[in-house]
Amino acid sequence: MVASLATQREIFARIDERLEDDILRLQAFVQQPSISAENHGIRHCAELLRGYLAALGCDPAELVETEGHPVVYGERWVGAPQTLLIYLMYDTQPVLGETWSVPPLEGRIVEQEPFGRCLVARGAKNSKGPLRAFLNSVEAIQDVTGSLPVNLIFVAEGEEELGSRNLPRFVERYASRLGKADAALHPYALQEPDGRVLIWPGTKGLLYVEIEASGGRWGRGPRAYDIHASQKAIVDSPAWRLIAALSTLVAADGNSVTIDGFYDNVRPPTAAEEAAVESLAHTFDLEPFKQLWNVDAFLDEEMTIGLLRRYFFTPTLNIDGIWGGYTGPGSKTVLPHRATAKLDARLVPDQEKDEILAKLRRHLDDRGYDDLDVRLMGGGEWSQTSPDARIVRAAVSGLRELGVEPEVWPRNVGFFPAYLFNRRPLELPFCVAGLGHGGRAHSPDEYFALDGNSAVAGLAGCEKSYAAILFAYASQGT
Amino acid sequence: MVASLATQREIFARIDERLEDDILRLQAFVQQPSISAENHGIRHCAELLRGYLAALGCDPAELVETEGHPVVYGERWVGAPQTLLIYLMYDTQPVLGETWSVPPLEGRIVEQEPFGRCLVARGAKNSKGPLRAFLNSVEAIQDVTGSLPVNLIFVAEGEEELGSRNLPRFVERYASRLGKADAALHPYALQEPDGRVLIWPGTKGLLYVEIEASGGRWGRGPRAYDIHASQKAIVDSPAWRLIAALSTLVAADGNSVTIDGFYDNVRPPTAAEEAAVESLAHTFDLEPFKQLWNVDAFLDEEMTIGLLRRYFFTPTLNIDGIWGGYTGPGSKTVLPHRATAKLDARLVPDQEKDEILAKLRRHLDDRGYDDLDVRLMGGGEWSQTSPDARIVRAAVSGLRELGVEPEVWPRNVGFFPAYLFNRRPLELPFCVAGLGHGGRAHSPDEYFALDGNSAVAGLAGCEKSYAAILFAYASQGT
Repeated sequence: MVASLATQREIFARIDERLEDDILRLQAFVQQPSISAENHGIRHCAELLRGYLAALGCDPAELVETEGHPVVYGERWVGAPQTLLIYLMYDTQPVLGETWSVPPLEGRIVEQEPFGRCLVARGAKNSKGPLRAFLNSVEAIQDVTGSLPVNLIFVAEGEEELGSRNLPRFVERYASRLGKADAALHPYALQEPDGRVLIWPGTKGLLYVEIEASGGRWGRGPRAYDIHASQKAIVDSPAWRLIAALSTLVAADGNSVTIDGFYDNVRPPTAAEEAAVESLAHTFDLEPFKQLWNVDAFLDEEMTIGLLRRYFFTPTLNIDGIWGGYTGPGSKTVLPHRATAKLDARLVPDQEKDEILAKLRRHLDDRGYDDLDVRLMGGGEWSQTSPDARIVRAAVSGLRELGVEPEVWPRNVGFFPAYLFNRRPLELPFCVAGLGHGGRAHSPDEYFALDGNSAVAGLAGCEKSYAAILFAYASQGT
Repeated sequence: MVASLATQREIFARIDERLEDDILRLQAFVQQPSISAENHGIRHCAELLRGYLAALGCDPAELVETEGHPVVYGERWVGAPQTLLIYLMYDTQPVLGETWSVPPLEGRIVEQEPFGRCLVARGAKNSKGPLRAFLNSVEAIQDVTGSLPVNLIFVAEGEEELGSRNLPRFVERYASRLGKADAALHPYALQEPDGRVLIWPGTKGLLYVEIEASGGRWGRGPRAYDIHASQKAIVDSPAWRLIAALSTLVAADGNSVTIDGFYDNVRPPTAAEEAAVESLAHTFDLEPFKQLWNVDAFLDEEMTIGLLRRYFFTPTLNIDGIWGGYTGPGSKTVLPHRATAKLDARLVPDQEKDEILAKLRRHLDDRGYDDLDVRLMGGGEWSQTSPDARIVRAAVSGLRELGVEPEVWPRNVGFFPAYLFNRRPLELPFCVAGLGHGGRAHSPDEYFALDGNSAVAGLAGCEKSYAAILFAYASQGT
């Protein structure tokens, strides 16, 4: 089913009519807690979502049990030639220890300039707001047309905030069903406060580890507890050992990674990726980006293009945290029995998580640091779809119909588990797209803009963008 | 007044008679809190101590105000040819956050094998127990002889646990009075559980600093708060900067200090110090020392003598603590805006605290790390008295009279502010000595042995040792 302009206008009008009810639907969804780390409300939220999918006409609409939280799975077959896999997440971050200006699980509506009414709640932006907005959009299309432009396969996981640890096994088990899709879409709200709209046809990969030096494993230094610092004269220091080992992992500037072979499999950017960055460099304004990220200077201050190349094409090794010994006020003197660092590596094609983990381990072993414990804490592989892929072209043309000119970024520099659909065996083209704006994900007063303004779409604009992308996908030439 | 053997026997008998009352005196003193960090009970404790000194016949017996807690000062003139300065501390560590098996400020008496009755209280060992034991000993001598073998000048500070921050100014102001002393003694309980008795004629010096890398000062990296780790691609890392800077301070083994010029002023051990270490090496047993310090292996495992040389003669640089970024469970990804380390350097003659601080600063500056904040947190200079000094010989011969053979260690490897009396302008020979045993200083269930056993002196033996040292000092040939 390819929509006529008139049909699309009718759907958009229907979305505008539904707005106040759709706001209630977002509120109802965020009011059902789904905090995966605490297993708080997860199963009730999964049941609620299964009900939503059933109401859309999905068959099956089911909970698929995993070793952790269930996946909510649905198929909506309308006899369309094309099928999209819709990747969703229904879990959220905790709120424990955060200070909110409103109760975080009540779904309060708050006026927030310059966006008018905003939904302020845990999950409002990441990602229960956009999830429910997508379902609203599908309902509106079905209301008006009685059908959909594409078949939909829904995969909604409840462990994204836990590193999607059971999703790989689900994808394996459901591979033959998921393989019926032609491409995958993660509907999100990718609009910056200034109105700029991003499309992400890929993500970097992620390796997250803890590295620990301890006297117990080393056989040197204090074994099981911290001792008086004066003993340093004859007792080795696990803390100095960690410093020494870490200092072999990057150059003195903290940027070039010096793990043996780290860059071996970095594939040069494609011509299309280079073109995307060159195009982006013409309009990219570093100043608001500095404000956004709370920095006075970036690495390659002089050249936007160099900076963007680094941003999208360069793998990194970061210290997320480090601790050991006495960290309180004043001057207590101890020789710590252990010291620990958390590190994350952001990987680009064709680096693989296990490859880099093995290289890190070998690098340390080769330098005599075989006693250091390297604990895998999580992560996953990169994903990458060509900007020429039908799903990306559909996102671009769908958004253009709404009067915006999206920027196709080479990839998302963060991580989410798109690779499970994008890489073998499914190899589905995958992209993240959608109008709308939210903020403070993982932070207090997380919000999603309901009204929006002249620059930024509100909830109705967000829902329209999803409809437009589905129709554009159906009507794209291959 | 030189005591005849008969007089000493009488004094020892008096100490034995007084034992139960002397235990009550220790209890009363630890029941008066004197937690300097919290200013808890400090002034009341100072008043109590002034009363003790007045009761001994001190004139003056006074509180000397400082910018912090008062010094309790007393002079007891008996017309003896020799005068000893008695350095004491009346403050203690806090108890907040510690889990004790008895209330820490009640002065409970607890049976603790193999030491019989022990006083279990904050300050029992460090140092209100030995302080009150010394005063008991002086009382017993005066009871029996009506006088003392030496004149005494008492200096009791209330800020030892805060780094003795106002004691230098006091010593300056009182220099002409303190200069009347011929030597200084810190009466302590220096007996190991196996009965070995130590004498310390010196201490290492201490420099305690915090070193911090931060985006705000650097002008690179996140300015004021931690940001998303994916931004590492274009944002510098203060945490990596701290690692890089720290790794220039010591060799890869974490032991040799590589701060430019760090060892320049290390004076080789004297013949007497070498002789002391060689003598100690014959009897020193590493195995219990390993147990005591919770290690499987020391630096120079193969050679006790090498280990002891390092212990006493080698300056060190230790990481006491390090922290930055996310240090909780799981895998939160942030790029920290700052990272901090606490370091202590233990210094030997002729290194000076300010010299090493300046060298550390210059070392960092010379390598471009001039943005790193180096904060002086505390410390003080080494002190050193020859083992041939009268006060050390008196301690040795006094303890021998009690049937023990003390080990004169080259120095205490910890730190306390003996240098204020031992170095210019006073230049008093200084030593730490005394029988008796206590443990768990700065920890829960701190104790002081009251009964003792066949190996270790109890309170009476401790008090006798102080009396014996005073008499030995009076009777030593110069």
